[in-house]
Amino acid sequence: MNINRQWLLSKRPEGMVTRENFEYAETPIPEAGAGEVLVRNLFLSFDPTQRGWMVDRPSYLPPVAIGAPMRAGSVGQVMASQHSDFEVGDIVQTTGGWQDFVVAAPGQGPMGLTKLPAGVPPEMMLSVLGITGLTAYFGLLDLGMPKPGETVLISGAAGATGSVAGQIAKIKGCRVVGIAGGPEKCAWLKEEAGFDAVIDYKAGDVDGQIKASCPDKFDVFFDNVGGDILEAALNHMNLKARIVLCGGISGYNATEPAPGPANLMNLITLRARMEGFIVLDYMPRAGEAIEQLLAWIQAGDLKFQVDLQEGFDQIPETLQRLFTGQNLGKQLLKIADPI
Amino acid sequence: MNINRQWLLSKRPEGMVTRENFEYAETPIPEAGAGEVLVRNLFLSFDPTQRGWMVDRPSYLPPVAIGAPMRAGSVGQVMASQHSDFEVGDIVQTTGGWQDFVVAAPGQGPMGLTKLPAGVPPEMMLSVLGITGLTAYFGLLDLGMPKPGETVLISGAAGATGSVAGQIAKIKGCRVVGIAGGPEKCAWLKEEAGFDAVIDYKAGDVDGQIKASCPDKFDVFFDNVGGDILEAALNHMNLKARIVLCGGISGYNATEPAPGPANLMNLITLRARMEGFIVLDYMPRAGEAIEQLLAWIQAGDLKFQVDLQEGFDQIPETLQRLFTGQNLGKQLLKIADPI
Repeated sequence: MNINRQWLLSKRPEGMVTRENFEYAETPIPEAGAGEVLVRNLFLSFDPTQRGWMVDRPSYLPPVAIGAPMRAGSVGQVMASQHSDFEVGDIVQTTGGWQDFVVAAPGQGPMGLTKLPAGVPPEMMLSVLGITGLTAYFGLLDLGMPKPGETVLISGAAGATGSVAGQIAKIKGCRVVGIAGGPEKCAWLKEEAGFDAVIDYKAGDVDGQIKASCPDKFDVFFDNVGGDILEAALNHMNLKARIVLCGGISGYNATEPAPGPANLMNLITLRARMEGFIVLDYMPRAGEAIEQLLAWIQAGDLKFQVDLQEGFDQIPETLQRLFTGQNLGKQLLKIADPI
Repeated sequence: MNINRQWLLSKRPEGMVTRENFEYAETPIPEAGAGEVLVRNLFLSFDPTQRGWMVDRPSYLPPVAIGAPMRAGSVGQVMASQHSDFEVGDIVQTTGGWQDFVVAAPGQGPMGLTKLPAGVPPEMMLSVLGITGLTAYFGLLDLGMPKPGETVLISGAAGATGSVAGQIAKIKGCRVVGIAGGPEKCAWLKEEAGFDAVIDYKAGDVDGQIKASCPDKFDVFFDNVGGDILEAALNHMNLKARIVLCGGISGYNATEPAPGPANLMNLITLRARMEGFIVLDYMPRAGEAIEQLLAWIQAGDLKFQVDLQEGFDQIPETLQRLFTGQNLGKQLLKIADPI
């Protein structure tokens, strides 16, 4: 194999992202310069926030350029190293993108370049210990500030972030209610992840279901969805509720921005707070979170699900799975096995 | 005078509140029981939040009952006392309501019963040192947390709360931009209150005007208005901006709740916070605020405007002035002179 397969962003999406937004290309394998390493991607991470990176508007990262490989987190293997901290064969995490090979260096790109902790498999590193796990950890604890006995409501609860946020809330002594789509996801949340109650939004009347599932209303809402679900939730806040705005996946593929919640002024009467965050700001504290998350996994208190697709050709469709709700847990795709 | 004139809430408003929502009545003067005093109202306070008290839905205070005198803050004079802390002739602040006489006691009603500090006239007590001044003080400082050099944007800037919030931000070393309606209000803000820039929303293109007036975007938005102005503001936030939700007067007389801002998800990319509050929660700290506000007034750093109407018959129309934007500064109405 002496080519670098790539999926380039060819056209900015309007509406649902599809294969038509990308173009397949084959280019020479790049070479690592001084202080750099050449990484072969093994696993790609798929995250709802990637949809935002495809659009040319100001955000927390610059948009992916037209003609550039689609940006994505990855776990890969070092194939050549000109950096003294890395050896050929090391398994590393970086921003590999939708391609076989990437030249990476510590401190470069949103994910930098780090070796996986000993004994941590790539699937765990890219899910519960990765960006989505850290998002759950810092968003729930730093912004949500859940206290024992409080009710914590989670939307996108079966997703990679929501499922971890909910289980952390359980560990912190909260009553946890999850909102997810379909009986399979709901069953996993109740039976495996230990949620106290689950709402299937596909069954309708989310407002009524929240009311029934949160007899004491909620103190923390960890929102991955936005739109109608956010509006319904705002009807069931306790005094001093904290709304953690993690994502708004319901709107990511909209051609026009949807109106916001008509009941936003409930924040005033209930002295409530709504706050957004970007996990990249917390990277200096990643070590603390990974250590704690790993301890919870080893104690059996934190379960996670990986939805593993395979095949380089399946990359564009795998991104779509996030927006159609097909994924069960963290969406990954395997390109290659380590050597 | 041996009757108690009253304006009773007779019909809950749908749309703009008018005289038709109230009924004039004459009742006997009530008597103070043990621990109570009889107060004759001299000045009534008019506040946008009164519109919310007229509606039968859960809020931070129970709704005014149909057939009861409309709730309102007031300054009055003690006519009879069965409480050892109060003497006949004392000038007091309480929740007098739309009537000549009220029986009051310390700790009862949202405003309790307190004597005015020595040398403070009723108009000052009901404006810059009253609920609207305290709202500005605690909302801006506790939630907005302005730092020297930051830009603070204020909507409803010529109102009783907004004008105080903006001047406190100036005192704290911020660049202050106010949004108000019409050239007279805007001129007062620039020339008297010392705002750095002013936006007349009646001149249109609020979004463009905010952009032009806030070349460094804003760090704090103190919002009294909601609706389109809130949405426009959310396009011009700095990283870690704080949106203080103080009120949403644009929606108070709507028959149907208007949609919220379509750009709410900007809170995520900019790690921004939106938080509501109710000043009544801060009453235990009122003394601290009044002392500081009074010192700023005496130093000439804090100006205030009172829009003083007269006549018991004008009470319903005076409430309307708040929602048509006719008031210049704090809206008060004088019923009687002290004896």
